[in-house]
Amino acid sequence: MLLEKVKQTITKHKLIDYNDTIVLGISGGPDSVCLLHVLNELKEEYSLKIYAAHLNHKIRGIEAQKDAIYCADLCDDMKIPCFIRAIDVPKYCQENGLSIEEGARILRYNMFFEIKEKVNATKIAVAHNLDDQAETVVMRIMRGTGLDGLKGIEYKRDNTIIRPLLDIKREEIEKYCYDNNLNPRIDYTNLEDIYTRNKIRLKLIPYMEENFNPNLKESVCRMANLLRDDSDFIDNEANKAFDNLCEKESERTIKINTQTFSHIHNAIKNRIIRKCISFVIGDLKGIEQKHIEDVMALIHTEKNDLKINLPKGLILYKKNSSIIFTDEEIKSESINYTYKIPKSGYIKIKELNTLVETKILNKEDINLCSDDKYTKYFDLDKISGELEIRNRRNGDKIKALGLGGTKKLKDIFIDFKVSKEERDKVPILCDQKGIMWVVGYRMSEDYKIDTNTKKVLRISIKKL
Amino acid sequence: MLLEKVKQTITKHKLIDYNDTIVLGISGGPDSVCLLHVLNELKEEYSLKIYAAHLNHKIRGIEAQKDAIYCADLCDDMKIPCFIRAIDVPKYCQENGLSIEEGARILRYNMFFEIKEKVNATKIAVAHNLDDQAETVVMRIMRGTGLDGLKGIEYKRDNTIIRPLLDIKREEIEKYCYDNNLNPRIDYTNLEDIYTRNKIRLKLIPYMEENFNPNLKESVCRMANLLRDDSDFIDNEANKAFDNLCEKESERTIKINTQTFSHIHNAIKNRIIRKCISFVIGDLKGIEQKHIEDVMALIHTEKNDLKINLPKGLILYKKNSSIIFTDEEIKSESINYTYKIPKSGYIKIKELNTLVETKILNKEDINLCSDDKYTKYFDLDKISGELEIRNRRNGDKIKALGLGGTKKLKDIFIDFKVSKEERDKVPILCDQKGIMWVVGYRMSEDYKIDTNTKKVLRISIKKL
Repeated sequence: MLLEKVKQTITKHKLIDYNDTIVLGISGGPDSVCLLHVLNELKEEYSLKIYAAHLNHKIRGIEAQKDAIYCADLCDDMKIPCFIRAIDVPKYCQENGLSIEEGARILRYNMFFEIKEKVNATKIAVAHNLDDQAETVVMRIMRGTGLDGLKGIEYKRDNTIIRPLLDIKREEIEKYCYDNNLNPRIDYTNLEDIYTRNKIRLKLIPYMEENFNPNLKESVCRMANLLRDDSDFIDNEANKAFDNLCEKESERTIKINTQTFSHIHNAIKNRIIRKCISFVIGDLKGIEQKHIEDVMALIHTEKNDLKINLPKGLILYKKNSSIIFTDEEIKSESINYTYKIPKSGYIKIKELNTLVETKILNKEDINLCSDDKYTKYFDLDKISGELEIRNRRNGDKIKALGLGGTKKLKDIFIDFKVSKEERDKVPILCDQKGIMWVVGYRMSEDYKIDTNTKKVLRISIKKL
Repeated sequence: MLLEKVKQTITKHKLIDYNDTIVLGISGGPDSVCLLHVLNELKEEYSLKIYAAHLNHKIRGIEAQKDAIYCADLCDDMKIPCFIRAIDVPKYCQENGLSIEEGARILRYNMFFEIKEKVNATKIAVAHNLDDQAETVVMRIMRGTGLDGLKGIEYKRDNTIIRPLLDIKREEIEKYCYDNNLNPRIDYTNLEDIYTRNKIRLKLIPYMEENFNPNLKESVCRMANLLRDDSDFIDNEANKAFDNLCEKESERTIKINTQTFSHIHNAIKNRIIRKCISFVIGDLKGIEQKHIEDVMALIHTEKNDLKINLPKGLILYKKNSSIIFTDEEIKSESINYTYKIPKSGYIKIKELNTLVETKILNKEDINLCSDDKYTKYFDLDKISGELEIRNRRNGDKIKALGLGGTKKLKDIFIDFKVSKEERDKVPILCDQKGIMWVVGYRMSEDYKIDTNTKKVLRISIKKL
């Protein structure tokens, strides 16, 4: 019965191939002992080579040595080679600043992968069961998770780590051990967050089973299995969209075009943002949904030339319809340009992709009431020498019309909340005496048209 | 604070438009009283017309009347027209075979929609809060659900029913009522499965908050919000695939091509199957994941001409690389054919798209050891008159080789588990005396090659 169910799991999830060599992690507890026995039963059918691997983590003293002896004897009976290694896990954890759970897990998997190399194995089998799966999913729900967390522990990872007991309940495993006289030891394999997990296992889930659904564990695992498909589907779609949409600019800088991005479904947007963040900082540790939402807001705002800082040194820039994810400050290349302007004619400022048009008019022919920020009139006779248009320079000042007195350009930009990146793009009109017009913002008092004015210079600036 | 949060919810989920007319369901409990007060506060900003609707469901006798009076007075104070209706809910439920929860819900929403028609309203507002949302999601997880259930209660349904309090915790609502002197009545609106819900509200969630996550409700609701996007995305993709792939054959019969289907992702397959089932039987009540998996297996098996029965009179047929979902028996058109076969040559049986090849050989030239089910040898001299190939007929019999005695074809087909639909497609080779070969299954004793045989008829059947 248990054997048949495990075979179904193996077939359904393609866990084992004919001729596989499997390294099995064995603690001596019921789960891993059951899995050892089951794989040994399937040995001929699948033409398997099996190796066992036991880590004595030196946490339980004499009991840990008994675990190791038990594993060695059991494997000996089944004629399965068993690697036993003793590592001072607490010492390792202290030295590396890890929790016992985390350190033990790292050392355990390191050992499995080493042995896998040594014996040329194709798979590593571990013994998580249906109860572990339900507990994991319930724990993740309580802590807060998304689709990716809800799918639970995987049957197979990277076609290497396999979990053939994931559809089997703990009580079935215990019965199997009893029926087959395996006398397993008390299982301490699962050190991971044992206190929280025990409360879930011994209190929360029994309460839920008694009051809401006697088949709670199966229901939760069925949900996880369904969601695994859903998660896989959306991830595939998100990967495709990520590859299409995101330009890798350097090893840790990536760019999204916001206009293409805006047409994508929210579910995919969310994942693309996560992928861009992972690209820059390696993973998503320390990144919360709130931060994803900040990025989303940055993408969707109509403002430009923005910058936000997120945890782990992640920096986001919004420039011309692009979002740049990076971990380096981007110094805006300062644009430098000076153009001589004819008093009547056209000239293009290529740095700004802008056209400047000038014309000399009689005072009677102009319409001073027009409210165009980009067309202005100046008294021709007040202009000294040649006209030019250039970018701002440090120390620039203007005797601003209507404000009285001289004002620094820097202060004008601050008043109008013009970002530093944008400031270089504001054309400054000058003659040989000084600044006549900070285009789009302020004109100078010194060139204004008055009762004595005869000829007028009209100048228009047009974005191309 | 609460008002600001509700406004954010309204904006984020586009719950209210300028100039909306809203019918608000009011029980007299804190949730609906708070929502009434909030909407009244927003009345000018959004230029709203508000109507309240209270159902006295006659379950709580004198208390129910007090609820009604309280609602009428409160609305009066706010100058909001209030519709009050008394319906004998228990009687209605008894007459219609409904549970009290279900009956009360139907009557409540019927009333809301009626009033919406009468006053020409655009929206119906109901007062579910963040706690309701968390409880609903936890309940669904425990009962077993998929992505569709995990997304929880919706902020907006069909652009009509809106839930502006869905991001507000129950304690914030109670504080708001207290701060605004609203003195709500004890809330009995939520009759839905009150016993289970109370256990979740008063026992399970507090236990989870205390032991695992003090912000459990917010975490669960955040998860639901994320999953809502995911669910929406997959549903959109599934709808597109359904429209492309499924041919509606009649009002309640729909067909999928299994070959196109096999290239689709599991997550979409699952949803397409559900949609096909809904198309036939109206909804998915009584259909479990197990049934979906039965359908999946039917689609993926290489066998043809199969039929399975599912609950609610749903019937599935598999015929020539198609799956038909229907609620009507499909009578298979019986195939009828007879072909004269030359003793040496070729002939095609078009009904089966099959080629028959015959050749006369010397006994010495044949290889009797070959194990080809579709190439057989017969003693030419034992054959009487013309050869023919035809479909089975009632009463067909054969003196089957190796079995001794005569056997009915029907019994042979039963032995080999050949479905009724497939039986018509099995070619039967005869001479003028009787049946020589049930192709693929049994040969007759009467034509076998023996020591006296001189000439041999070789006959091969090939699927084209």
